Amino acid sequence: MSSILKQRVRYAPYLKKLRTAQECVELFSPGQYLGWSGFTGVGAPKAIPTALADHVEANNLQGKYAFNLFVGASAGPEESRWAENSMILRRSPHQVGKPIAQAINDGRTQFFDKHLSMFPQDLTYGYYTREKENDLLDYTIIEATAITEDGSIIPGPAVGATPEMVSVSDKIIIEVNTNTPSFEGLHDIDMPINPPHRPPYPYMTVDQKNGLVSIPVDPSKVVAIVESTERDKVPANTPSDAMSQSIAQHLIEFFEHEVKLGRMPENLHPLQSGIGNIANAVVEGLAASKFKNLNVWTEVLQDSFLDFFESGSLDYATATSIRLTEAGFDKFYENWDSYSKKLCLRSQVVSNSPEIIRRLGVIAMNTPVEVDIYAHANSTNVMGSRMLNGLGGSADFLRNAKLSVMHTPSARPTKTDPTGLSCIVPMCSHVDQTEHDLDIVVTEQGLADLRGLSPKERAKQIIKHAAHPDYRDQLTDYFDRAEFFARKKKSLHEPHILKDAFKMHTNFQENGTMKLSSWD
Amino acid sequence: MSSILKQRVRYAPYLKKLRTAQECVELFSPGQYLGWSGFTGVGAPKAIPTALADHVEANNLQGKYAFNLFVGASAGPEESRWAENSMILRRSPHQVGKPIAQAINDGRTQFFDKHLSMFPQDLTYGYYTREKENDLLDYTIIEATAITEDGSIIPGPAVGATPEMVSVSDKIIIEVNTNTPSFEGLHDIDMPINPPHRPPYPYMTVDQKNGLVSIPVDPSKVVAIVESTERDKVPANTPSDAMSQSIAQHLIEFFEHEVKLGRMPENLHPLQSGIGNIANAVVEGLAASKFKNLNVWTEVLQDSFLDFFESGSLDYATATSIRLTEAGFDKFYENWDSYSKKLCLRSQVVSNSPEIIRRLGVIAMNTPVEVDIYAHANSTNVMGSRMLNGLGGSADFLRNAKLSVMHTPSARPTKTDPTGLSCIVPMCSHVDQTEHDLDIVVTEQGLADLRGLSPKERAKQIIKHAAHPDYRDQLTDYFDRAEFFARKKKSLHEPHILKDAFKMHTNFQENGTMKLSSWD
Repeated sequence: MSSILKQRVRYAPYLKKLRTAQECVELFSPGQYLGWSGFTGVGAPKAIPTALADHVEANNLQGKYAFNLFVGASAGPEESRWAENSMILRRSPHQVGKPIAQAINDGRTQFFDKHLSMFPQDLTYGYYTREKENDLLDYTIIEATAITEDGSIIPGPAVGATPEMVSVSDKIIIEVNTNTPSFEGLHDIDMPINPPHRPPYPYMTVDQKNGLVSIPVDPSKVVAIVESTERDKVPANTPSDAMSQSIAQHLIEFFEHEVKLGRMPENLHPLQSGIGNIANAVVEGLAASKFKNLNVWTEVLQDSFLDFFESGSLDYATATSIRLTEAGFDKFYENWDSYSKKLCLRSQVVSNSPEIIRRLGVIAMNTPVEVDIYAHANSTNVMGSRMLNGLGGSADFLRNAKLSVMHTPSARPTKTDPTGLSCIVPMCSHVDQTEHDLDIVVTEQGLADLRGLSPKERAKQIIKHAAHPDYRDQLTDYFDRAEFFARKKKSLHEPHILKDAFKMHTNFQENGTMKLSSWD
Repeated sequence: MSSILKQRVRYAPYLKKLRTAQECVELFSPGQYLGWSGFTGVGAPKAIPTALADHVEANNLQGKYAFNLFVGASAGPEESRWAENSMILRRSPHQVGKPIAQAINDGRTQFFDKHLSMFPQDLTYGYYTREKENDLLDYTIIEATAITEDGSIIPGPAVGATPEMVSVSDKIIIEVNTNTPSFEGLHDIDMPINPPHRPPYPYMTVDQKNGLVSIPVDPSKVVAIVESTERDKVPANTPSDAMSQSIAQHLIEFFEHEVKLGRMPENLHPLQSGIGNIANAVVEGLAASKFKNLNVWTEVLQDSFLDFFESGSLDYATATSIRLTEAGFDKFYENWDSYSKKLCLRSQVVSNSPEIIRRLGVIAMNTPVEVDIYAHANSTNVMGSRMLNGLGGSADFLRNAKLSVMHTPSARPTKTDPTGLSCIVPMCSHVDQTEHDLDIVVTEQGLADLRGLSPKERAKQIIKHAAHPDYRDQLTDYFDRAEFFARKKKSLHEPHILKDAFKMHTNFQENGTMKLSSWD
């Protein structure tokens, strides 16, 4: 037993339950329901998932040894290895990584999406374990960075759904990661309280703390602890480029305009931003702007937020996970005292809570697969069918934000055409955000302000300001024809010609581009 | 001045501003932005809208004398008359009545839908008046049933968006309705407080009161008061029938099952139900069931709730509007002392608040236009284009409820085919509720429990349990073909063939039925 493990585990009875990850394998049997800690690739268990994958590979159990797996959002590379070995029967509510998407899209894994704010709550209602004899998770495997004197868990860089999982687990296994510092003091954790006894969340500012510093568990449920020394491995961030910087510039000008008209305070409202190069460009743009004393209320913080803090423009940030690269974490640990005063990690039901997002007036910014001319957005399913990563918290934020922004390149390349995919389409092939949920659509071409507009007015703004020039005429043509058709049918609210609504999509499937020779 | 008016208006300075409705006409000019009190056809102003319609008709001003009109939800028959006279340039967020839908669908009125919980808030942000020089409503016209000593307003049977409208109105006109009793004591009103200062709503039970009994106004903004003697006129309710009773029976059996498994308390959770014969059948079914001590947290109460109270099964009900027929109101007034202890009316931002709905664990039940095999729902636009009444609060409730139920007949008649429209389709022609928002789809055929299922699993349940027998094979055929197609494309998450996804819809448009001769 390492001395650092003894130091981290301040509740002695757990140390009697110490096992190696390999020794845990015998606890599991296929078909079980498992919860893992973790959110957006950090804070997930590593040693036991690796031992189980080793077991499957060594014994050629691929497809015969699989689990129902729930993680707050995505886990790390261990999850990809499980997918490669067909070890995931069922999965919710969010995943990242080519092997997992592959398992979902070739039918090996039954995946279902759920709003990240709702998933943990519905898990505690027994909705996802209703096919089981008892309605509990068989095991929750939690990565901890320390254990307190009463046996409760100090998570690492993610709180996620762990509080809820613990509350509905038959047994618990704790991986204590001794290769990262203890994250003690960085969390503010709300434990689940179900209706009819649930009180209001009290948070009125991003830095308000009211929860616990650790996750209480019933020690009798903890069947094993394992020392883990594997660090989180997050892929390098996509740097911003001319396209994403242009989007950021449009947005910052728009924020300035809103402040000038008195619709937003000088330090804006708390910001939510997603993952990817546009999100990074927006953060970079804000850090370089004249906006000061900014705040962040979001679900995940990335490396760019460290620079944002250093710019002096960001006062406080809160999320349910801090997803840094190894270099990012090194920087974070070196400046722990400074960052830990400006940052806190919460349960995902709180970071993504509709009412808190509404109450604070959050500015939500997300990237879709596609947006349509009436301002519906597809966040998940390419061509209506192929799952990418899942819904995540996009709809938690976009429906409830004071300002709901979808930012996207206006077009993307295909194999044969540098602008073969228009991100503005006549009708989304899958709808995750409705036309009632978006205020702003912005691309490198410009910004369409949709607030208070009817569908037909929105279509004109989106085509004019956001569509790629290669598609403007084609989209206008669709809209004009649909208006003509709808006038005859007396259905001019939101004109569509259903037989042509997906013609750009099917043309892409057949000819590799959304550019049509004709609408006829 | 009638003695009853003097008695109702307890703030004397207002009486000096008394005018007839006709004398108010000169205050208005076309293009103005107007707010009206009212919600679901009750509590809206009547005298001034009538005088303005008379003015338009007498002077042949149809199409030349029109307004931007906002009402919490729908107003009464006066609004229909405005629509017939092309007096509505722009309208949000919900409307009811053939003439209004007609004006929207033939392009005379620009209508935009918004979640009823968000509309009032976004109005206070200035989002809907951003094209104006000042960002205020020019007038709000409010029906009051009394005025307190400080000039504040006691509404009638609807609170709706009046608190927010008053807070962003340049001028206010009050219609005091002396033909209905004063509703004093029946309201619990939260006034808007915007970010960053908004506190949590404290409500933890349906009967908790924390707000005001009246709506405070700045008396200097009140430019006129008018006596009104017109009662609310709500059309007769559609009675339940064998189809809706069968749906109610499936649902009540399901609730019993959930209670038995411990997923719901014996008195269920607070209920939300919509308008229409299925909603009435569910209320009747619950009143006749063994469930006792039930509660209601909803947006609108109808006549059926009076019987529900009388059955002894309903303890308390709260909403933002009580929409009764004239006979229903008579009964209500006769038993005022009894009902007023069991009922309260709130601001619509509170009745429809996502967090309170979530906190209380509400059971939400609504009727869609159509549902698709993967559990998206269309609540607003027939054939993707033709507006019915609008979104209402359906998405406020369905996204946040503990149990989200869509109830619908499995098929509807067309001119030539008694089951020519299937309410279960391959893909919704418009999406208002996403697949991430529904738990249960129930028709007279049966109940599909979708909790925790992947899209493909949902499709099988919905086709088997909810689809009309006339369409089961056809829908299964679509699903099988889509699965075959998606297997080739490696997109088996949610199989679709985009070129066929609306084939049932276009067949209806062309041949009057959704029954296909073949998918080829």
